[in-house]
Amino acid sequence: MSKIVDVKFELKTYKYYKPFHITGSVSDSSTNIEVVVITDIGIKGYGEISPSFRVNGEKVEGLYKLEAAIKESIVNMDVKEYRRIFDVLDKFFATPSVKAGVQYAVLDAFSEEINTPVYYLLGGMKREIETDKTVGIDTIENMVKEAKEIFSEGFKNIKIKVGEDLRKDIETVEEIARNTKEAKYIVDANMGYTPKQAVEFVRVLYKKGVDISVFEQPVVASDIDGLKYVRFNSPYPVAADESAKSKYDVYRLIREEAVDFVNIKLMKSGLSDALAIVEMVKTANLKLMIGCMGESSLGINQSVNFALGTGAFVFHDLDSHLMLKENKFRGKFKQNGSKITIL
Amino acid sequence: MSKIVDVKFELKTYKYYKPFHITGSVSDSSTNIEVVVITDIGIKGYGEISPSFRVNGEKVEGLYKLEAAIKESIVNMDVKEYRRIFDVLDKFFATPSVKAGVQYAVLDAFSEEINTPVYYLLGGMKREIETDKTVGIDTIENMVKEAKEIFSEGFKNIKIKVGEDLRKDIETVEEIARNTKEAKYIVDANMGYTPKQAVEFVRVLYKKGVDISVFEQPVVASDIDGLKYVRFNSPYPVAADESAKSKYDVYRLIREEAVDFVNIKLMKSGLSDALAIVEMVKTANLKLMIGCMGESSLGINQSVNFALGTGAFVFHDLDSHLMLKENKFRGKFKQNGSKITIL
Repeated sequence: MSKIVDVKFELKTYKYYKPFHITGSVSDSSTNIEVVVITDIGIKGYGEISPSFRVNGEKVEGLYKLEAAIKESIVNMDVKEYRRIFDVLDKFFATPSVKAGVQYAVLDAFSEEINTPVYYLLGGMKREIETDKTVGIDTIENMVKEAKEIFSEGFKNIKIKVGEDLRKDIETVEEIARNTKEAKYIVDANMGYTPKQAVEFVRVLYKKGVDISVFEQPVVASDIDGLKYVRFNSPYPVAADESAKSKYDVYRLIREEAVDFVNIKLMKSGLSDALAIVEMVKTANLKLMIGCMGESSLGINQSVNFALGTGAFVFHDLDSHLMLKENKFRGKFKQNGSKITIL
Repeated sequence: MSKIVDVKFELKTYKYYKPFHITGSVSDSSTNIEVVVITDIGIKGYGEISPSFRVNGEKVEGLYKLEAAIKESIVNMDVKEYRRIFDVLDKFFATPSVKAGVQYAVLDAFSEEINTPVYYLLGGMKREIETDKTVGIDTIENMVKEAKEIFSEGFKNIKIKVGEDLRKDIETVEEIARNTKEAKYIVDANMGYTPKQAVEFVRVLYKKGVDISVFEQPVVASDIDGLKYVRFNSPYPVAADESAKSKYDVYRLIREEAVDFVNIKLMKSGLSDALAIVEMVKTANLKLMIGCMGESSLGINQSVNFALGTGAFVFHDLDSHLMLKENKFRGKFKQNGSKITIL
């Protein structure tokens, strides 16, 4: 038996090396909550809550106050019975990052109890994955410079943030493509375009001979018809991110044939919904990528274990910890540039 | 590391206490294949292949000859990386009971290696489940007698086989209901009716005040439109069994809104597809039951662990081992009449 006796939340703030600018948002720092689940035999499981107000409507100062409610709801439960605990935590659906961080901490405690890494618990599908690195919104000149640096550091997949200025965005992607040949591009508009702008964007770039591996969330989250319109008019695969939070969102996206790709982020779904999304998307023969919010290495560890264990992802956008200043690396994995491997 | 060094198949035949009669089939015995997966540190994982020619088109004499092909495909793989092995075994989709028994044996070996029961690996959702017991097709008098015996043995859920004679079937279910008040009934036609007969069946029984918890597979497996017609004209929940083998079958059933319930049998799906079906069906807000073919306690152990771990099932029809003569109980669980509990 390994019953939960305590759950602790601790606020941690990490500075970005450089302010991170995406459509409608600039961040200087990321404030997360470190979660520790403690069991009666002294095992500690760790997780991290990295909320996004923009995506989930969550504010860290409110989430932090849920410590007692979370503890009350799962205290005395056995971490081996993790699905029971996941079910209880599913009731915190309106604060999905809390659900995610606590669910992971529970699985981490179970993993420690049986001395088996989480990536094996989840299936041990891959031994190595490769993350992209992200170019935030900036001047064209600076974005091209940053993309070149990222590429020269060995990242083969580059994520490019667009969505605030159609003409400039087209020029930026074209310039980056010209300067980093053989890289692959995930272009993320973070809901910045109208459906027609999004189609214009891909058509112009396609005519210029630019290849885009994934075109992410071109339109606002609620516009599923718009997403479908872009999908059926885009030569590149179209992904849902902000539109795909819970498993119910993804169920609807599949039924409505609205996307080619789903971007899973544990902070939007928790582990419970993320596992369901993996199975649904694979069955529907669509593709998956995995992304992050502003996690430190502790939080990225969650997504890395999920990605290695399920092996479900074509692209991994797990780079927030590379953009944040941290004193100590806390992942239970090895990182060498873009390469992430099991211990 | 715990790498697979050998896989062994052994034929085992079990006699039924009483010939088991369902629509279009009478069985005196069940011939299964015991699977042993052996790893380089001497761990043995056990599974059982219990084929159904009627449902899956599988013949045990052919399956038995796959021993070498199975061994060749998974030898040297590490049981901790079970999803990798599941993926390889998914290629044996045309022999799903082989896929099921071998996938389970792999998970059993992993479970032994880390000294953690499979039901905890899968989530530890439930500590106890309750199985029904089945009344095969016979005279009305004998069927009522058997139902009364089952009920008096403490089984609250009774499965009733129908499908060969509409008028007699209606009378049988009515009589059983009158003689076992407070029992719940899963009525299984095993594809025996036309869609209109099926609707007639439920309408007449409904008017007589008989309650049916699940009406299983009224029409032939391929008739998804017929299944949907029955669903929308039945006051009772309608389940797919023979229509729901792979995860792709279930994906289609969900999209076409054809059923209320899905009956998962590991022998139709293997563990890999069964896990996907659980997630899809729960997301779509439909219900699940779990059933069996002609498994001995070794094979029922697989479904029991799956059901306890995922906790996904409203009804458990895991009674084949109760109908077969066995020298030794081989489940890694406790059974007391209808009650099945963790060790």
